[in-house]
Amino acid sequence: MVVARLPQYARVLSQLLEERVEVVNSDQLGERLQITPAQIRKDLSYFGRFGKQGRGYSVRRLLDELNQILGLDRSWNVAVVGVGRLGRAVLSYPGFAPAGFKIVAAFDTSAALVGQQVGNLTVQPMEELDQTVSQHSISIAIVAVPSSQTQQVIDRLVACGVKAIVNYAPTTPLVRKGIRIENIDPVLALQSMTYYLAQDRLWSN
Amino acid sequence: MVVARLPQYARVLSQLLEERVEVVNSDQLGERLQITPAQIRKDLSYFGRFGKQGRGYSVRRLLDELNQILGLDRSWNVAVVGVGRLGRAVLSYPGFAPAGFKIVAAFDTSAALVGQQVGNLTVQPMEELDQTVSQHSISIAIVAVPSSQTQQVIDRLVACGVKAIVNYAPTTPLVRKGIRIENIDPVLALQSMTYYLAQDRLWSN
Repeated sequence: MVVARLPQYARVLSQLLEERVEVVNSDQLGERLQITPAQIRKDLSYFGRFGKQGRGYSVRRLLDELNQILGLDRSWNVAVVGVGRLGRAVLSYPGFAPAGFKIVAAFDTSAALVGQQVGNLTVQPMEELDQTVSQHSISIAIVAVPSSQTQQVIDRLVACGVKAIVNYAPTTPLVRKGIRIENIDPVLALQSMTYYLAQDRLWSN
Repeated sequence: MVVARLPQYARVLSQLLEERVEVVNSDQLGERLQITPAQIRKDLSYFGRFGKQGRGYSVRRLLDELNQILGLDRSWNVAVVGVGRLGRAVLSYPGFAPAGFKIVAAFDTSAALVGQQVGNLTVQPMEELDQTVSQHSISIAIVAVPSSQTQQVIDRLVACGVKAIVNYAPTTPLVRKGIRIENIDPVLALQSMTYYLAQDRLWSN
């Protein structure tokens, strides 16, 4: 899916901009991204004509256009639900703010955690979800709760008007049409690599 | 890519097995996975004939076959490099062992962390990487070091014989052909969702 690759293009273009590279062609982008130049040209042509045949792309112009397409020309307010070990790692992750994702609220179902200070935020009870989501115009949530609670928490978020969810639990929650969900799961990442390792094993034995 | 979806099939089949479901058809799998039944039939046919027309798939047989294809019918030794906040969250994540991924060693470049006890492991210096990787037949590593160190650490791992890497740093490291790498980055996940949110905004304004 091309949309999943666009953020990677934007990231590499940002790196190029920092390196003061002004023009880049699909071969160079391809090498950095390990994607074929043909695929890159196809992906970018899908969103309009950015480059001129044989001349390459203007790094800054392409980056600006991609950021606009991806909705990255603005900032987004984000809520984190679940402040266990993983939720705390998420809250302290320094990569969100520079990318325009502002974590403005943290929630937990456990009464023992509610009221605790985590970084700049005070952990709120789930009862305050509705009000906080509408007050801060939160359209994105990061969910780091145990699998058994995930579906229920996600249903609550969707009911409050959250439109996009990153889920860290090793489950595949159901959401209605129009709601975006991305599941982040290191086990799935490992499992899709062992396929290749197992094939190597077959050939080398 | 079909291989990336197979672990998700295996996960849902495991859940079905726990629920004592014996036979499943592509419609039911599709609903659980939010993938079209046609895509599921296509994916599974690519790896051989598992089901009979109109009868559905035997849950146990399909799961066994998928596990074998994915190399999940055995266990894998894994090393973690980087034991900062994220690395510690990885080391304490309870999902790896039941899935057959045994974290057998932890490394860090910082002398302050070497020798510390994290769970059952003692943090080792990078100098011991070579010996430990070959001693424990480690073919998979999880890298949770800062972006600035990522490429260097991954080069070291590959030189020691590690074949598959999960990278948590927000960079796109280069690896030679034959080495598998999966980048886990919540920012990229967020960024591919804001595209849709931004489109919604265009339509609703």
